[in-house]
Amino acid sequence: MSKKVTPRSQDYSRWYTDVVQRAELADYAPVKGCMVIRPYGYALWENIQAGLDRRFKATGVQNAYFPLFIPYSFIQKESEHVEGFAPQLAVVTHGGGEKLEEPLVVRPTSETVINSMFSQWIQSYRDLPLLLNQWCNVVRWEMRTRLFLRTTEFLWQEGHTAHATAEEAEARARLMLDVYTDFAVNDAAIPVIPGRKSDSERFAGAVRSYTIEAMMGDKRALQAGTSHFLGQNFAKAFGTQYLDQNNQLQYVWQTSWGVSTRMVGAVVMVHGDDQGLILPPRLAPIQVVIVPIGRSDEGAGARQAAQALADDLRARGVRVRVDDREEYSPGWKFNEWEMRGVPLRIEIGPRDLAAGQAVLVRRDSGEKAPAPLAGLGERVPALLDDLQRDLLARARAFRDANTHTVADYAGFQRVIDDPGGFIVAHWCGDAACEAAIQEDTRATIRCLPFEGQTGPGLCVRCGRPAAERAVFARAY
Amino acid sequence: MSKKVTPRSQDYSRWYTDVVQRAELADYAPVKGCMVIRPYGYALWENIQAGLDRRFKATGVQNAYFPLFIPYSFIQKESEHVEGFAPQLAVVTHGGGEKLEEPLVVRPTSETVINSMFSQWIQSYRDLPLLLNQWCNVVRWEMRTRLFLRTTEFLWQEGHTAHATAEEAEARARLMLDVYTDFAVNDAAIPVIPGRKSDSERFAGAVRSYTIEAMMGDKRALQAGTSHFLGQNFAKAFGTQYLDQNNQLQYVWQTSWGVSTRMVGAVVMVHGDDQGLILPPRLAPIQVVIVPIGRSDEGAGARQAAQALADDLRARGVRVRVDDREEYSPGWKFNEWEMRGVPLRIEIGPRDLAAGQAVLVRRDSGEKAPAPLAGLGERVPALLDDLQRDLLARARAFRDANTHTVADYAGFQRVIDDPGGFIVAHWCGDAACEAAIQEDTRATIRCLPFEGQTGPGLCVRCGRPAAERAVFARAY
Repeated sequence: MSKKVTPRSQDYSRWYTDVVQRAELADYAPVKGCMVIRPYGYALWENIQAGLDRRFKATGVQNAYFPLFIPYSFIQKESEHVEGFAPQLAVVTHGGGEKLEEPLVVRPTSETVINSMFSQWIQSYRDLPLLLNQWCNVVRWEMRTRLFLRTTEFLWQEGHTAHATAEEAEARARLMLDVYTDFAVNDAAIPVIPGRKSDSERFAGAVRSYTIEAMMGDKRALQAGTSHFLGQNFAKAFGTQYLDQNNQLQYVWQTSWGVSTRMVGAVVMVHGDDQGLILPPRLAPIQVVIVPIGRSDEGAGARQAAQALADDLRARGVRVRVDDREEYSPGWKFNEWEMRGVPLRIEIGPRDLAAGQAVLVRRDSGEKAPAPLAGLGERVPALLDDLQRDLLARARAFRDANTHTVADYAGFQRVIDDPGGFIVAHWCGDAACEAAIQEDTRATIRCLPFEGQTGPGLCVRCGRPAAERAVFARAY
Repeated sequence: MSKKVTPRSQDYSRWYTDVVQRAELADYAPVKGCMVIRPYGYALWENIQAGLDRRFKATGVQNAYFPLFIPYSFIQKESEHVEGFAPQLAVVTHGGGEKLEEPLVVRPTSETVINSMFSQWIQSYRDLPLLLNQWCNVVRWEMRTRLFLRTTEFLWQEGHTAHATAEEAEARARLMLDVYTDFAVNDAAIPVIPGRKSDSERFAGAVRSYTIEAMMGDKRALQAGTSHFLGQNFAKAFGTQYLDQNNQLQYVWQTSWGVSTRMVGAVVMVHGDDQGLILPPRLAPIQVVIVPIGRSDEGAGARQAAQALADDLRARGVRVRVDDREEYSPGWKFNEWEMRGVPLRIEIGPRDLAAGQAVLVRRDSGEKAPAPLAGLGERVPALLDDLQRDLLARARAFRDANTHTVADYAGFQRVIDDPGGFIVAHWCGDAACEAAIQEDTRATIRCLPFEGQTGPGLCVRCGRPAAERAVFARAY
């Protein structure tokens, strides 16, 4: 089977799908819009989960599990929420061979059912804050789907917290966005822009939504994680109240926040190239592949050296695989592991062995260099750290090179078409202006960034005074 | 809030529900038959997952994720399978506001959808064996539900493997039952009986089903895990074929195997007592709770000593919690942590501190003894190991004391009523005899055990020659 993928320059969208399928990250399920996550993709997701879960728990969050099915009436209790989600619902009407009295919704997100439990569990200020998270599947009916990026069913984590004060809830929403940023930058090597969503992009039912936005390899934006300050909207809809220190009933203040299997798609699109995936070492299921060269007797020494090096690396906590399969040629294996994005390849042939060395090949730069076998195991972790750092630097340089300021709206319209990328420009805050820009250019406000040159100016479209700048882009 | 539970002797079923709710393992969801797994219960499940997942991976199994929704037509492809599962299905008829062309089933188990993918992925003998597992939720419509033991939605893992030969598949089915047995005995401290299911208790679509059966505290049996040799039933229904070494198309041979959140219920019922849960140290979310005694100034030294001991234990990999909350009395805390089944409690009061000691209280035996603070951290892991071993020994002694042989069918009927428990007796292999025994006594064949006195004899009911003995019991 040919493992070649469509070049990015030819058809980026096709390149993405080719890579996801040929690297065996995922496949199409028999049900339209659904996907199967294959073992290599799932191992990547497990590493994403581990990196996030550890960070969540360090902030005091505990995992729990809430039911898949939500009574239809729950979804209707928060008016913005039902408006946002009603068109996307999958509905169970029959169970155990009978028509149900009330149809059940397959959860698109769990604010409603979680509030129905919070309202029972929370009695007094002593029960607050309540900091929960769940890892689960959710379903949102989608017309146009794409593996990992937009599927009818996807996996995610959804955190849900309840607090005594607005300030504490707001701080938690921001803290979880910091956690996402830290994960994206340090584990996924994706330089994200944290900021606030405009009202039109707010989560259905939230007071304020925060986001981390990343630039993909085609210069389009992808929302990689969101965190919402829900105010008391759901608390009021579900009667989630507590007795404060003065014995007064108060509604709780809430947050919710989520990262999904979409993050896998982001990793593919930020780092990958025409040879396939390039995985950041911290997330790579296999960080180092060792390929001994030479068949049977001739290669026995190389295979032995490969195993010894692998044992050494495993003892240092490196995820390593020796590919000593006899039925494939070295060239085939090199292509295969490049397609799968393994950060570092180590080749050991009989001549290398005689010279007491191995050949190291970096997946990111393709750089190929001999290295002495003696002490190699000790040097690999530092090499992987270098590679991790370089991937982040490269992604940041790419993003910065493709982030533009413009002199006026004509410039905006020209630049968004060619060369494309992010445009940082002042916005007056008027949703009508935002809609007009989207209508004219297909670019949306990705966020109002927390950092950068955010002082006042004039709106790029209407010229009215604008309090802050926004990041505009065409987005996934 | 009173934390007292109904005594087991008064109402075992009520005791179980009380413990699950008051120890905050789980709660009822708003949708009938569904449950919410609370943080303490989920932490226990996470430890169960970790113990199983590690063992699966050591046998070469990889995790993946298959879709929640299955086309209704898939379920119908294997005749026994549809017959077994049709009455329990939840059906999605509407998505995105429209009626679906073909209704979708919410997976009750995934043999069908997994075979639809296997038939695409498997081409040649080189692709075999394929050893996959997924951790997910499944839905089976249930009329009479009980937290963890039988709920409409539950969490589980389902392993699915495909092999070139019947022998290899059979060996895999048995291997995974061994893995379950090892986990149950060594991590959950539950002495299970591994064996084969009778045909009437076989999984719908399997050739042979294997099971591990455990005795609960009320002497009833609980099926704690199953592993199935599926033969080629699903392979033929879905056309899952491979080209063998001779370039001939062959159907694969398959297995599937699962353990669910039911295991949490088993842990509760095997070890718990009238004070609440008793958790085996290997699964306990909190293995040691340290309670410093004395408020404010008086207790400062004790609090300090508690923190120092906790740091020491954490460094040794012990899951420890210091309960220094000022708003609760020591007595309240003791009850609370007993309810939650923490294996070991360490009390440190000002007088203990002056004497250079702490008081250790074992949750299983209630045994209370002073121990020198110096070097205590070093001794705790061994103490937890002792406790783990003693829990297993106690459960095994209880099971053995309540496992009976009987002289004749009159004896069978008497013993199953009083004193109850397991009866090991010969069975002729005739399903009619099995059904008659169930009709007469409500006891079913739990398994045909692999080990024990399994030689020939006479059927306990009909007196005809019987090749082997069965374990009979009333079951959950």
